[in-house]
Amino acid sequence: MLTVAEALQKVQDCVAALPPRVVPLEQALGCLTAESIASDVDSPPYDKSMVDGYAIRYADLKDGVGELRFLEEVTAGELPTVEVVSGTTTRIMTGAPMPAGADAVVMVERSKELPTGHIRLEDPKAKPGQNIVRRAAVMSRGDAVLPAGKLVTPTVVGLLAEVGCAEVRVVPRPRVAVLATGNELVEPREKPAPGQIRNSNGPMLAAQVMRSGAEPIVLGIARDDRESLRTKIAAGLETDLLVLSGGVSAGVLDLVPSVLTELGVREVFHKISMKPGKPLWFGLRKGADGRMTPVFGLPGNPVSSLVCFELFVRPAIAQLAGQPLPAEPQYLAKLTEPFTHRGDRPTFWPGRREQQTAGSIGPSVQPLRWQGSGDLRTLIDADCLICFPAGDRAYVAGEKVDVRPFC
Amino acid sequence: MLTVAEALQKVQDCVAALPPRVVPLEQALGCLTAESIASDVDSPPYDKSMVDGYAIRYADLKDGVGELRFLEEVTAGELPTVEVVSGTTTRIMTGAPMPAGADAVVMVERSKELPTGHIRLEDPKAKPGQNIVRRAAVMSRGDAVLPAGKLVTPTVVGLLAEVGCAEVRVVPRPRVAVLATGNELVEPREKPAPGQIRNSNGPMLAAQVMRSGAEPIVLGIARDDRESLRTKIAAGLETDLLVLSGGVSAGVLDLVPSVLTELGVREVFHKISMKPGKPLWFGLRKGADGRMTPVFGLPGNPVSSLVCFELFVRPAIAQLAGQPLPAEPQYLAKLTEPFTHRGDRPTFWPGRREQQTAGSIGPSVQPLRWQGSGDLRTLIDADCLICFPAGDRAYVAGEKVDVRPFC
Repeated sequence: MLTVAEALQKVQDCVAALPPRVVPLEQALGCLTAESIASDVDSPPYDKSMVDGYAIRYADLKDGVGELRFLEEVTAGELPTVEVVSGTTTRIMTGAPMPAGADAVVMVERSKELPTGHIRLEDPKAKPGQNIVRRAAVMSRGDAVLPAGKLVTPTVVGLLAEVGCAEVRVVPRPRVAVLATGNELVEPREKPAPGQIRNSNGPMLAAQVMRSGAEPIVLGIARDDRESLRTKIAAGLETDLLVLSGGVSAGVLDLVPSVLTELGVREVFHKISMKPGKPLWFGLRKGADGRMTPVFGLPGNPVSSLVCFELFVRPAIAQLAGQPLPAEPQYLAKLTEPFTHRGDRPTFWPGRREQQTAGSIGPSVQPLRWQGSGDLRTLIDADCLICFPAGDRAYVAGEKVDVRPFC
Repeated sequence: MLTVAEALQKVQDCVAALPPRVVPLEQALGCLTAESIASDVDSPPYDKSMVDGYAIRYADLKDGVGELRFLEEVTAGELPTVEVVSGTTTRIMTGAPMPAGADAVVMVERSKELPTGHIRLEDPKAKPGQNIVRRAAVMSRGDAVLPAGKLVTPTVVGLLAEVGCAEVRVVPRPRVAVLATGNELVEPREKPAPGQIRNSNGPMLAAQVMRSGAEPIVLGIARDDRESLRTKIAAGLETDLLVLSGGVSAGVLDLVPSVLTELGVREVFHKISMKPGKPLWFGLRKGADGRMTPVFGLPGNPVSSLVCFELFVRPAIAQLAGQPLPAEPQYLAKLTEPFTHRGDRPTFWPGRREQQTAGSIGPSVQPLRWQGSGDLRTLIDADCLICFPAGDRAYVAGEKVDVRPFC
């Protein structure tokens, strides 16, 4: 059986970034740019005033004082119509274009309108060029302002808007299909009859997909028959990645691997040496365009499903988005209490990280009293998985263990 | 003028969590629950098998070995039809209900079908009760499984689905209106004429709203006239919070505060001792239902707008969502290079945190070569703001400064 690290390596080797696509700017947040962007404007596009005030010729001030004839007012969005010649001034608003002839701006707080209509300015510390941002000070038309491969943050959105990129070529947000399988499942709004349970994996996996920055495509429940599975799986293969839950252990009704094969999905691995999550299935389908669609068959138990998603599906989604996760998202923490691990497989056990306090030395983690892979109730208090290596062992409080945060 | 801390305190005093609302489960992710949830089912709903195997009476094994008559097969979603009496066995799949009479399950890997149709089992370590999860082991019908005030994570979504909450009462995701103002603005897809610039604040603020976990309502551009402002602002006041950019400094066309007052928005403060962002305006409008709608007027310069959002709007959105941010999201980091701060206001300067390496002691931060509040280009490399207190001072490399990460 593969180890977790071997299986993860296979997933990473098989999954490539999605082909770039042009998307509207408002959909690009969180994506990686796939083109380098040049500005189509100077920024600022003209010499502009940084303050509300009066545009003057600096030479008109004597010891910072001058009384100047008022010409006109220019606000942002307007253009000056007359030149500021010696002895005159134009009122100018923040962001507005400087009038020809002027070489400084005196802030409005240092001005007074005289009864004659002239403007008296008093600015003892005035300097030539003050309160002006020069045309193209930030960037010139044609400048490369953003390389390819940059994560689109809110600031990048602002910059792209400024340089006219209402659309931008990015590695798109992956679309991830989620399909629960099983005759025993009913939707959350239904009341389970005897022998039935509600589909908790579908909604949980869709939420995990969202938290991974991808778009969930919810396919509902497939029944344990070839026809139902074939229809739903075929729909899922039209997306960028398909996540199934249930139907991959060894039971007679575990038809999923067989239907996947029938639909052209090649098995890469089945079963991993880990607990929970041993029956994990992973395969690839080569589409008409030559692209490989990754397919994960997660075990049906909710906690197995959650853990397999964190360990394998989340990194695959990151690869599709062109943003590989760090190889080792784990760190060491001290156990807050003793813990006995039993079993011949590495175990991922729900834990809760302790708030770090001033007195504490390094992070610590509490193993939760967990009832096994059907127990979601305990898991709501978990914020990490504690990784215990294979083998029976009694850990004492304070011993260091590997911890893997999740969201 | 108010200090940043005083202004933030006023914002926090004025903004209350939104009234709870029932939303479909798939919309609850990231929200706080506003009701305590009890389970309407036992989990598991019946004694169930944890493995694919054979349900038996433990007493039928001698030294772990038995040959038993095959009765029927029960898969998940089916109910057993006959009791397992002495000398018989029922094939059972993972998750399926245990048949009456059986008190243990032997894994399928330890079984063999004999030519007689009998099943031979060899499980030397077998114990009574093995491979069975008892009805209600995880939770009983009526158990409180989730308190009010819990953040809805993917795991909580799974648990809510399991206990039948297809809808749940939560503090809803805030709806935040974004409105840019200014005669000089054109939309990103337009080519600016002389004197015009593109609206970069609108898209950037909408992205910041998304990153804050809220839903942006994009209102576009309002012109600097009362009618245009009145219509757009009135639309914005129908949401949970209104963010304007531009129109709040002292210019003659800065009509925004006056139109806000006309529409019943009461000013709480205007101007803060900080750089950039001094002209920030904050007010409240009491709605017909008595609820207060917070309104922020951010300065029009993109970086001022970004900084004011991070410092004031993001905490206000968190309060609306019932999830107040930690009071001090800052930490100390060492300057990687000397920096000279000048000015009589505290300054928030774009910085880039250095990757922590094995040899480095504590976090460090590089102040970026930033050209002032119009310069978004430099800001795309920033991942934090460095907070320099008021006053002229030359900082040396290695000195500790306050750092405030942003996303």
